Amino acid sequence: MTVDRMRALEMHRRARGKIGVFPTVNVRNEEELGLAYLPGSVAPSLAIEEEPSLSFELTGKGNRIAVVTDGSAITGLGDISALASLPALEGKSLLYKLFGDVDAIPIALDSKETEDIIYAIQMIAPTFGAIALDDIATPRTFTVLRELRSRLALPVFADDEQGMAVVVCASLQNALTVTEREIADCRIVVCGAGATGIAVTHLLLKAGYKDIIMLNSSGILGPENAMMDHMQEEMAAQTNPRGTKGGLAEAVKGAHVFIGLSRGNVLSGELVKTMAPSPIILPLALPEPEIAPEEAVAAGAAIVGTCLYEYDNTLQSLQAFPGIMRGVLDVQATMVSDSMLLAAASALALAVDRRRLTPRHIIPEFFCDEVTPRIAEAVAQKAIEEGYARTALPVNEVYERTWQRLYGVRKKGY
Amino acid sequence: MTVDRMRALEMHRRARGKIGVFPTVNVRNEEELGLAYLPGSVAPSLAIEEEPSLSFELTGKGNRIAVVTDGSAITGLGDISALASLPALEGKSLLYKLFGDVDAIPIALDSKETEDIIYAIQMIAPTFGAIALDDIATPRTFTVLRELRSRLALPVFADDEQGMAVVVCASLQNALTVTEREIADCRIVVCGAGATGIAVTHLLLKAGYKDIIMLNSSGILGPENAMMDHMQEEMAAQTNPRGTKGGLAEAVKGAHVFIGLSRGNVLSGELVKTMAPSPIILPLALPEPEIAPEEAVAAGAAIVGTCLYEYDNTLQSLQAFPGIMRGVLDVQATMVSDSMLLAAASALALAVDRRRLTPRHIIPEFFCDEVTPRIAEAVAQKAIEEGYARTALPVNEVYERTWQRLYGVRKKGY
Repeated sequence: MTVDRMRALEMHRRARGKIGVFPTVNVRNEEELGLAYLPGSVAPSLAIEEEPSLSFELTGKGNRIAVVTDGSAITGLGDISALASLPALEGKSLLYKLFGDVDAIPIALDSKETEDIIYAIQMIAPTFGAIALDDIATPRTFTVLRELRSRLALPVFADDEQGMAVVVCASLQNALTVTEREIADCRIVVCGAGATGIAVTHLLLKAGYKDIIMLNSSGILGPENAMMDHMQEEMAAQTNPRGTKGGLAEAVKGAHVFIGLSRGNVLSGELVKTMAPSPIILPLALPEPEIAPEEAVAAGAAIVGTCLYEYDNTLQSLQAFPGIMRGVLDVQATMVSDSMLLAAASALALAVDRRRLTPRHIIPEFFCDEVTPRIAEAVAQKAIEEGYARTALPVNEVYERTWQRLYGVRKKGY
Repeated sequence: MTVDRMRALEMHRRARGKIGVFPTVNVRNEEELGLAYLPGSVAPSLAIEEEPSLSFELTGKGNRIAVVTDGSAITGLGDISALASLPALEGKSLLYKLFGDVDAIPIALDSKETEDIIYAIQMIAPTFGAIALDDIATPRTFTVLRELRSRLALPVFADDEQGMAVVVCASLQNALTVTEREIADCRIVVCGAGATGIAVTHLLLKAGYKDIIMLNSSGILGPENAMMDHMQEEMAAQTNPRGTKGGLAEAVKGAHVFIGLSRGNVLSGELVKTMAPSPIILPLALPEPEIAPEEAVAAGAAIVGTCLYEYDNTLQSLQAFPGIMRGVLDVQATMVSDSMLLAAASALALAVDRRRLTPRHIIPEFFCDEVTPRIAEAVAQKAIEEGYARTALPVNEVYERTWQRLYGVRKKGY
């Protein structure tokens, strides 16, 4: 979608920050001051010192997350300064609030060193209930993610990459239902081995897809490919079971699913014709998809989904990350596991009414109020099941609370 | 003031965080989403990449500060965990918003190492327009303060210590007027050489007071005192010009002003009687002042001020820090200088109507709407004068904006 540059600048200039801080209690006299500040905050501090988990109840920690970036991979801009990443970060914070009622604090870090990033996030961690890694370049983002998961008892989550992985899994689940295919006999090509490509492939493997071929700019990931970082080598070991060699042409031949996370116009209609009959084509590159939806359909695609609003089946991480974060916070989870992400994917898929499930409607439309609570409930349930939840709320209560929070937000007129 | 423990816990449990995040723009459809998030945030990011100072205009940075602690010197609790410091931090954030319309983000750091603290704050600095150091133990807090001032082009400010220094200077200015004394012939005793004692003495020296004696728990700071940290040694070199030796008794003899920042009941009426006629007594220890106000008055004190709400002349850093922060943010200042703090002190002193200036009213009452805008204006003016302001707004506009912000806040019913 195109947005007028001057209009965007004008809006940002007027807003002076797309999020702000607001008070939840009032201080109109000495008594209220004593209660809200000193000595009033001594009692909760002592309670937390004795029982740290009370910090979720007695402070904002339980609904507060940090959205952290080093500015190294800002969507549409690439590697920029931490300062210049603030508009994107604040945008993300805004979406967390509006779509998930999560208090997300933007944190732009003044270093692009992996160790610095890990260290700084560890330092500020006590303040937050979860950490979202935002637009950090690959493979750094995975190193940070893994390291922090081992060091912190908090959910650490690469929201765009893992969020998009959830959305792709959900779309594919519905697409297979519509085209009456089974996971088992499904051959998938993932074109693009950046952070999102890797996160998507990783989750697809966890979902049970066996036959996946990944490509980076120099071809299929595998022994022949000389241009792989350590993450891509890891993926090479888990993909391409039939040992296909070569590039995109060889990869897509006979495949049922194409997932594009690379760049515009790399897939031709001719290549689509070489795929299995009525394939599923998800060209998710921005601003230009790998193939224009019209062209894919003309070449025989049964289902097409892009990141673009102008077409049916718009896939964006926004459909997943607010609900996932809402869910982990509602049960004070200690981590986001792959099965929690898979639970989120199923919930998202099933949010499409079965009677309305068609090739042109495999994913809920944006601004569908049901999506966040459904995902949140599924994620919370799974966390409780797996023992990653600090508070085991009865699930329907989780569900209730999630709805209340969201309707609370809407009522406040947000 | 005493606050019922259970009531405080109940309030904190209900609030689940005394501050929250709110959106300043709405996202109800694809167009608004495109404007507020992507691609809408690309234009401001590019603008900031070209001209970093635009980050103050196009993001929330210009009104956002970090309130940072390591939990090492939380008022009323001492050295506790970062987690347990959150209620105090959030209380401080709440006051910044309610009294100064500043968006203050609480940041509790998971380390008490000086280098870690400096480093973490440097890392998160791009996100914020200023940094407030909160409840960090002395002398660490001064090391952090100095180091960050040299490394960051942002105001870094120990709000309780330097805020209290401003309030003491303001009170003393009015007290001297009431008792018709001159700075020049004024002998001051500062009892207590902790962070606040040092900050107060430092600012008094800058204000022109020449004859100050400081004491720590083992007596007057000076060559004889074997129990001094490096900050106290620095202060020893600048104080006690007459080389007085001994303890409190020797120090207060003939003094005009007693400032207590130590612990309860260390000053007796007998000692007050040994001071100069009708002395000024500011016993600021909490929860118990160094001497009960009644006792000080009975012993001949002309003016008494404490930190307690129950008496006249309540001195608290809250009367200064919101206005100081408001002022530095309104002109995008690059630092908080001593002369900016002195300007704040005069503004605070002059906020007391001259016709209402009496021994029992040397400092404005709490919740006086005028205080923040007056201090903010004075601080902003001084920053512009000294060349520490990034934007040189015409002063009356600064003043206007400050009022508007504050009345804006009040109108929103905060």
